[in-house]
Amino acid sequence: MARNDGRQVNDLREIKFTRGWLDHAEGSVLVEFGKTRVLCVASFSPGVPRWLKDSGNGWVTSEYAMLPRATHTRSDRESVKGKLGGRTQEISRLVGRSLRAIVNMKELGENTIVIDCDVLQADGGTRTAAITGAYVALADAITWAKAQGHIKATANPLSDSVAAVSVGIIDGVPMLDLCYEEDVRAETDMNVVVAGDGRFIEVQGTAEGAPFDRALLNQLLDLAVEGCATLSKLQKEVLSK
Amino acid sequence: MARNDGRQVNDLREIKFTRGWLDHAEGSVLVEFGKTRVLCVASFSPGVPRWLKDSGNGWVTSEYAMLPRATHTRSDRESVKGKLGGRTQEISRLVGRSLRAIVNMKELGENTIVIDCDVLQADGGTRTAAITGAYVALADAITWAKAQGHIKATANPLSDSVAAVSVGIIDGVPMLDLCYEEDVRAETDMNVVVAGDGRFIEVQGTAEGAPFDRALLNQLLDLAVEGCATLSKLQKEVLSK
Amino acid sequence: MARNDGRQVNDLREIKFTRGWLDHAEGSVLVEFGKTRVLCVASFSPGVPRWLKDSGNGWVTSEYAMLPRATHTRSDRESVKGKLGGRTQEISRLVGRSLRAIVNMKELGENTIVIDCDVLQADGGTRTAAITGAYVALADAITWAKAQGHIKATANPLSDSVAAVSVGIIDGVPMLDLCYEEDVRAETDMNVVVAGDGRFIEVQGTAEGAPFDRALLNQLLDLAVEGCATLSKLQKEVLSK
Amino acid sequence: MARNDGRQVNDLREIKFTRGWLDHAEGSVLVEFGKTRVLCVASFSPGVPRWLKDSGNGWVTSEYAMLPRATHTRSDRESVKGKLGGRTQEISRLVGRSLRAIVNMKELGENTIVIDCDVLQADGGTRTAAITGAYVALADAITWAKAQGHIKATANPLSDSVAAVSVGIIDGVPMLDLCYEEDVRAETDMNVVVAGDGRFIEVQGTAEGAPFDRALLNQLLDLAVEGCATLSKLQKEVLSK
Amino acid sequence: MARNDGRQVNDLREIKFTRGWLDHAEGSVLVEFGKTRVLCVASFSPGVPRWLKDSGNGWVTSEYAMLPRATHTRSDRESVKGKLGGRTQEISRLVGRSLRAIVNMKELGENTIVIDCDVLQADGGTRTAAITGAYVALADAITWAKAQGHIKATANPLSDSVAAVSVGIIDGVPMLDLCYEEDVRAETDMNVVVAGDGRFIEVQGTAEGAPFDRALLNQLLDLAVEGCATLSKLQKEVLSK
Amino acid sequence: MARNDGRQVNDLREIKFTRGWLDHAEGSVLVEFGKTRVLCVASFSPGVPRWLKDSGNGWVTSEYAMLPRATHTRSDRESVKGKLGGRTQEISRLVGRSLRAIVNMKELGENTIVIDCDVLQADGGTRTAAITGAYVALADAITWAKAQGHIKATANPLSDSVAAVSVGIIDGVPMLDLCYEEDVRAETDMNVVVAGDGRFIEVQGTAEGAPFDRALLNQLLDLAVEGCATLSKLQKEVLSK
Repeated sequence: MARNDGRQVNDLREIKFTRGWLDHAEGSVLVEFGKTRVLCVASFSPGVPRWLKDSGNGWVTSEYAMLPRATHTRSDRESVKGKLGGRTQEISRLVGRSLRAIVNMKELGENTIVIDCDVLQADGGTRTAAITGAYVALADAITWAKAQGHIKATANPLSDSVAAVSVGIIDGVPMLDLCYEEDVRAETDMNVVVAGDGRFIEVQGTAEGAPFDRALLNQLLDLAVEGCATLSKLQKEVLSK
Repeated sequence: MARNDGRQVNDLREIKFTRGWLDHAEGSVLVEFGKTRVLCVASFSPGVPRWLKDSGNGWVTSEYAMLPRATHTRSDRESVKGKLGGRTQEISRLVGRSLRAIVNMKELGENTIVIDCDVLQADGGTRTAAITGAYVALADAITWAKAQGHIKATANPLSDSVAAVSVGIIDGVPMLDLCYEEDVRAETDMNVVVAGDGRFIEVQGTAEGAPFDRALLNQLLDLAVEGCATLSKLQKEVLSK
Repeated sequence: MARNDGRQVNDLREIKFTRGWLDHAEGSVLVEFGKTRVLCVASFSPGVPRWLKDSGNGWVTSEYAMLPRATHTRSDRESVKGKLGGRTQEISRLVGRSLRAIVNMKELGENTIVIDCDVLQADGGTRTAAITGAYVALADAITWAKAQGHIKATANPLSDSVAAVSVGIIDGVPMLDLCYEEDVRAETDMNVVVAGDGRFIEVQGTAEGAPFDRALLNQLLDLAVEGCATLSKLQKEVLSK
Repeated sequence: MARNDGRQVNDLREIKFTRGWLDHAEGSVLVEFGKTRVLCVASFSPGVPRWLKDSGNGWVTSEYAMLPRATHTRSDRESVKGKLGGRTQEISRLVGRSLRAIVNMKELGENTIVIDCDVLQADGGTRTAAITGAYVALADAITWAKAQGHIKATANPLSDSVAAVSVGIIDGVPMLDLCYEEDVRAETDMNVVVAGDGRFIEVQGTAEGAPFDRALLNQLLDLAVEGCATLSKLQKEVLSK
Repeated sequence: MARNDGRQVNDLREIKFTRGWLDHAEGSVLVEFGKTRVLCVASFSPGVPRWLKDSGNGWVTSEYAMLPRATHTRSDRESVKGKLGGRTQEISRLVGRSLRAIVNMKELGENTIVIDCDVLQADGGTRTAAITGAYVALADAITWAKAQGHIKATANPLSDSVAAVSVGIIDGVPMLDLCYEEDVRAETDMNVVVAGDGRFIEVQGTAEGAPFDRALLNQLLDLAVEGCATLSKLQKEVLSK
Repeated sequence: MARNDGRQVNDLREIKFTRGWLDHAEGSVLVEFGKTRVLCVASFSPGVPRWLKDSGNGWVTSEYAMLPRATHTRSDRESVKGKLGGRTQEISRLVGRSLRAIVNMKELGENTIVIDCDVLQADGGTRTAAITGAYVALADAITWAKAQGHIKATANPLSDSVAAVSVGIIDGVPMLDLCYEEDVRAETDMNVVVAGDGRFIEVQGTAEGAPFDRALLNQLLDLAVEGCATLSKLQKEVLSK
């Protein structure tokens, strides 16, 4: 079954990572999943929040946001409204949790890395693109911190890599990496976060229309695992340059 | 393997539904999963939000919150802080989405039901208890609305029932319906929302420690489906009284 | 003159105190004045706010709130609106002030007790029920703190008890302990907070309709003092169990 | 017993009303109780809030605030903090309620008067000075509205006048119209709002130290009634100029 | 060309400074530019914000606000809305910056002066009146602090004086010190802040209608410099009393 | 005198405009002044705010913001803090005002264009780059709206172009287009907004250190006018492609 952009059901969109997109940040990556473009920026700072002081552990957290005209029609700014929407907070928490799952906080030492994921253009799958790009920015910030001596050269703060992708069921057919047009038509929508070793970090599936059964769930998971394996490989390639 | 409260790994805690807990609300249920107690209150009102006017469709939404001393130590009120936390918004959205998955909005007609889930005491699994209790309150509010003539007697706004349960892996062992003490020790934590017909409405699994593999995921899903089947049966029983 | 629920003008509604309503809190009481139900929970913590550090004095404060469907029609949550209403803040201040009037802060030592009064169902007189129940929760928390050694066994932080009741004038007749239906019809509404020794801690009378004269004020005070004496007796009884 | 400013226990401070203190407002009065100075400004506008549309009734409301350096030490602005304090809201509500008690809303017609009471300098008794001055500003705005034809010349929106004063017990002695220095030493503090005919509109007494008995309460009320009678007379005089 | 109040194009309105307008503040001035009345209050406190600790430098800052009925029609309070408007923040920043330009922070020592500028009545030029009055209040607070020994008697924290005035082009004619009626008609509006030595501290010119050319800009600057010279002289006179 | 990046005092940095940077927006331009990069996005929508309904006039407004890591060290998000800073609001107002100065609202008709200026990387002069880029995005959105028939083909909503640049005095020398390193060292900082015809739209000069005299002001204006003339030419070129 052909998709509206000619992809097969198990094809990712064109994936691009542009490292060092900013001049000052310790790690910065513009990640693109087709027309979805997310700027992932890792800011390193020595020290940790108060509740981690003297624990010997570091901290990694993330904030996700969308520019007002990332989408087809303009949305009001959350800064102007004076409050964060539930969706924004939910995704920020997801990205942070996903990154922390592959960070060894002891090895990071008492340092903090904040990863800002700002969606410059949205065409579906922004949260999974954010996670996938954020990992590359995080890796770059850690390399920088080692070079600067903030982290010991022998330390290994990253226990694995992490990538994420969305999958969904459209007209009964499971598909990989939905664009916006597909996303709004999906009966079931799933975001899957997978470590470099193929194991799951987060699985979030939602029936948008009718409930889904175990067989479909399994097909979706198969697609996602395969997609994330490809993304992991691309992350490794781009980081090795 | 015995659990700290003597349950087997696939045992639910003692489940109690007290219908009509309040005098004025169209539907009100105090649901208890062991020491977890959530007051689920359904408020019916004719009419719908502006964006649904003249669509012929109804609306169901939910708000979840915790009393400040529901937990072991007191938390500051979100009303005093002046903003909703990310966790609160995330769970409110989950409860609303789970209920809407089994509501036929056309049959509901242009009416709105808001379900408030206030956690009076928290001992793990508050969001899944909230969903399970909210369904009963919702059913009662619909019965009330039919009796009052707000909904046609022949309408069938509920396409199925919905229940939810948490499952998790502790010391490598998958377990059903975690209490707080188990929850904080779990390596993987999953909340599963299941329709009365056994199909999935929402699956949210998170690796708190190491990533989890497909085999463990399957065991967790098995436990959850079984637990929700029991909860569905209990819901039916209590609603038939 | 008979009232709509059969009471005499100087009758209280049925008063119930359920101590230990929660499992974790240092003091917790569900207080009921007829259909008005308020959950009063005392949270003890060692230490005091910054401005009392090293003063040798403790601190007692209170927060009052209503669940959204405590009333006949649902109200929006203050946490969602992002600000506390004037009524909420006014009552929180009143409850805290009333409790502090019977606490000897020197005897309490540098410890803090926060009393949360959450109205689960409202049928008039919620602020006076809150004060009356809060005293019992406070007493229980102090007993707990003595047992734990946070407060010396010989200390006497409570200089007296405190109870409160509403009175009002309906069709020219002063009445005790108004329910909601009576409250909305009252020309004058008065909340009176009385110590165990019968003296006044707070007197708040408001002309809702026409101003009231000294004779009516005196009749209202007589009724309130009598009602509070009964409440004090009930508090003593329930605490002696 | 002589007071620190030489007054007798039943003496008011020097009271001054300066009408027309602003050029644009429909009614504006600078009221002074000794060093306490409150600018009371009445803004008239045709029309009423939505919930009163087509009721034939008008609306009167009030907002009270303090300039940051009205007091001995500077307070942060509530606009900068982004929220109204409980005290501010409580007093705003009190002032509005006190004025509405002497307004005939039917006679006012569908018009709104907002009275802003801004404390320029505070030396005790700001809320009672605000009520006393607000009445004069309100009367002026009504006169203006009649002259403009917004209210019929024959209408009588004011059913009486209203004045207020604080009283308190210092070293066991009841005193009238406390200045700040006295206010902080008072064991009991009472604010009394009295109509022109001598009847009560609001009575708010608080034990700051020990509870107070009926005899002291009566003495305080006597002082307050006497003080308000004098204030009523002064209001009449200044309005007749 | 005669102006609506009879002034010549290069005439200031009647300027009045009333020093010591409040009893408690370290410096307080009611400044009047015609009907524009701004209460400028300087609050002195030993110590500096955290980021200046141990720098040896002091700090001067300012907050500007308008009373709700300073203007022809009532505006909502920013404290009630829960946020500061852009205009308020912009002017607060301008006033603070203008004052800091003539303060020698080393000479001030680790002390803080906050200047509150509250517009009691607005008739155009409130921000420039605020700056002009704030300087006088600041000077008084410094004199007070020297007398109290908070600042050394030999220190010289003020390197110069500062005054400000608005100028604008109406029907092609540059004019000095616009009142509200002129301000709304102005094609170009400029606020100029000038030190006592005649040099510029801030120049803010805005084309409200058509852009303006260099010749008009020069004429406006000439008028402003002349106006500020007069204001500086008046400041000196009033401070010498 | 050579500058740290080799420029002459009257040299602009390298200026780049990338039109159509986003796929969905009606106008979108990435503007670069050296390392300063601002994404300017114009969103067109039929209709106007309520206060312009039926006036026949359109509306143009702007919002400026910075990504958290646009600068050398990360700043907290205003959306997370829950309030807009004064600087953000001040610049948003400046950009909107500058654009409206060259828009003929009658010709625009009852349509609204919102221009979002998001600073992706900041190296001085972000507000002036924003204005300069915003004009190009605005022109593109108007072209789009004409093509779509939202604006008549014969209408001429743009009365001129607009560009802006910063100038400043460093070590006594006036310089054009300051980068961040120069900006922090500048004694006087001026932002000048100039129409295509060379006339001024906004002039904002601030003494950061000592006040500045008329001669320096004139030199700064000369530099700015020359710089803006170059920018206008570049805008024309890029729009003609």
